[in-house]
Amino acid sequence: MSATIVADDRVRVGLDVGGSKTDAVAIDGDDGVLARVRVATGWGVEPVVRSIRDAVTSLFARPEVAGRAAVSIGIGIPGQVEPGGSRVVHAVNLGIDRLDVGAALEPVFGVPVRVENDVKAAALGAALLHPGAASMAYVNLGTGVAAGVVVDGRLWRGARGTAGEVGHIAIDPAGPLCRCGQRGCIEALAGGGAIAERWGRGGPFPVRDVFDAADAGDPQARGLRADLARGVAAAVRVLVLTADVDEVVLGGGLTALAPRLTADVAGALDDSAASSPFLRSLRLAERVRVLPSGSPAAAVGAALVGAADGTPAGEVLVG
Amino acid sequence: MSATIVADDRVRVGLDVGGSKTDAVAIDGDDGVLARVRVATGWGVEPVVRSIRDAVTSLFARPEVAGRAAVSIGIGIPGQVEPGGSRVVHAVNLGIDRLDVGAALEPVFGVPVRVENDVKAAALGAALLHPGAASMAYVNLGTGVAAGVVVDGRLWRGARGTAGEVGHIAIDPAGPLCRCGQRGCIEALAGGGAIAERWGRGGPFPVRDVFDAADAGDPQARGLRADLARGVAAAVRVLVLTADVDEVVLGGGLTALAPRLTADVAGALDDSAASSPFLRSLRLAERVRVLPSGSPAAAVGAALVGAADGTPAGEVLVG
Repeated sequence: MSATIVADDRVRVGLDVGGSKTDAVAIDGDDGVLARVRVATGWGVEPVVRSIRDAVTSLFARPEVAGRAAVSIGIGIPGQVEPGGSRVVHAVNLGIDRLDVGAALEPVFGVPVRVENDVKAAALGAALLHPGAASMAYVNLGTGVAAGVVVDGRLWRGARGTAGEVGHIAIDPAGPLCRCGQRGCIEALAGGGAIAERWGRGGPFPVRDVFDAADAGDPQARGLRADLARGVAAAVRVLVLTADVDEVVLGGGLTALAPRLTADVAGALDDSAASSPFLRSLRLAERVRVLPSGSPAAAVGAALVGAADGTPAGEVLVG
Repeated sequence: MSATIVADDRVRVGLDVGGSKTDAVAIDGDDGVLARVRVATGWGVEPVVRSIRDAVTSLFARPEVAGRAAVSIGIGIPGQVEPGGSRVVHAVNLGIDRLDVGAALEPVFGVPVRVENDVKAAALGAALLHPGAASMAYVNLGTGVAAGVVVDGRLWRGARGTAGEVGHIAIDPAGPLCRCGQRGCIEALAGGGAIAERWGRGGPFPVRDVFDAADAGDPQARGLRADLARGVAAAVRVLVLTADVDEVVLGGGLTALAPRLTADVAGALDDSAASSPFLRSLRLAERVRVLPSGSPAAAVGAALVGAADGTPAGEVLVG
């Protein structure tokens, strides 16, 4: 498909605008990553727009893409976006309440600019970069917990923009209060923000501190670490038992704690399988994978979204 | 689509083989129900096959279809089926461990016979009979709890046959033990079989007895009834937050307890919305509907499945 859209000398650009870094890639007609750059992300509307401009400028200064033209720009951003649109709202981690990214950047770049929720973009990119399953869910373990589902190379969007919001499924009425107002949400157990808050001892890497303290025998840390594993295990079960995806791919900042995190999650899945023949038959632990550290999945997925002109909203195909 | 498959004088036949009754319909090229009959269902392989034959014979004795020819037969059955196939396994409520329905009945009827899981068939039928939403989940509240998801008229099948198995998502680590081995599954709280077992007082309509006793102030009954409502509310939240369906349609034997049951479920959804602005924004209580009592949805959906020759497995379209 892509080979017919992109002539050999033109590239599709994808950006993943994260809270601290903006990751930019240029991909060619074969979906190969030609070049990648990362720049710091600013805070607020103008600084974020400037970060995106800087990242694209740096990208085209790279010898692999210098002299080529961009055919489209896709931007993954942590906020609510309308499918196929160029506006984002409530990108709270970037200090943005509302931004029309297309209106801000299309006049600058002279090509179509589309935005996508960063987790959905990462799901699409993970499906392209790590093929093998006809259907997969990508679970982002960062400050919060959210998922994107890709079936037959197509992003599952759902009816009203809540597809993959597994972080706010409550799994324990006696669990901690979630910032969403419910008690015992998956995110309240497994979100990096919630864990840091419950840990309450500050530090730049609070979840890593929790793991280390748990290894040293700290009882509070052991409880928090067990909660993280059971929250992620619950997300895996929910995604398999509802959407019936073949594989669940874990990504996001907390996966820097693999292999400790993944061993915990496998342990939690094995524990529930031990008591349930039904769960055992699903072989869940074998169906969980981890996105390699530093994977450009979100930026690559954004590039696919950006190049999706001509397909209906939600009809972004991989490959 | 259907008008091109079915000539005017031919009909598609659908059957819903339930534990006590087998419901059969004949539908025409416009998906209209021409005639419907119900017969008692036998127990075990031979009696079930005989019930299906009796139902079809009775159907074609009806004046609305007498003299017409069947083009296909689809059978919804409470067990595991392979998509697009004619075999069922583990139909425990019918006393069937394994049955090739096609091999048993195609020589008798001389037309293709397909089987489908009864809940998935009902989901497809409910989407046809009660259109309005681009995506919907049908939740069957019977002995167990299971769901079928229909998006753009297409049944969501998933990768390994567990799509819609929301009954075995655990939502309370301190909840009752489920027959699947987990604790606090949605089905352990909201399945008619689990409620009857926990109530433990026998009777032909134990869940109705629980409702009546709860109305009379019995504390155990009030607890069981509240658990039923929170189980169904959790299923609604899981389906919206994972698959993001527009509407959730409740059906199955327990919905005979509407409007009491539905008021309880709306109450449980409103309670969680009261503490969570996020859930409030989803307006979940407004998105729940109930299949009318006596709806032929499962038999109609089975007729659609039966006529799906020529489309890939899972590509059954409504309308």
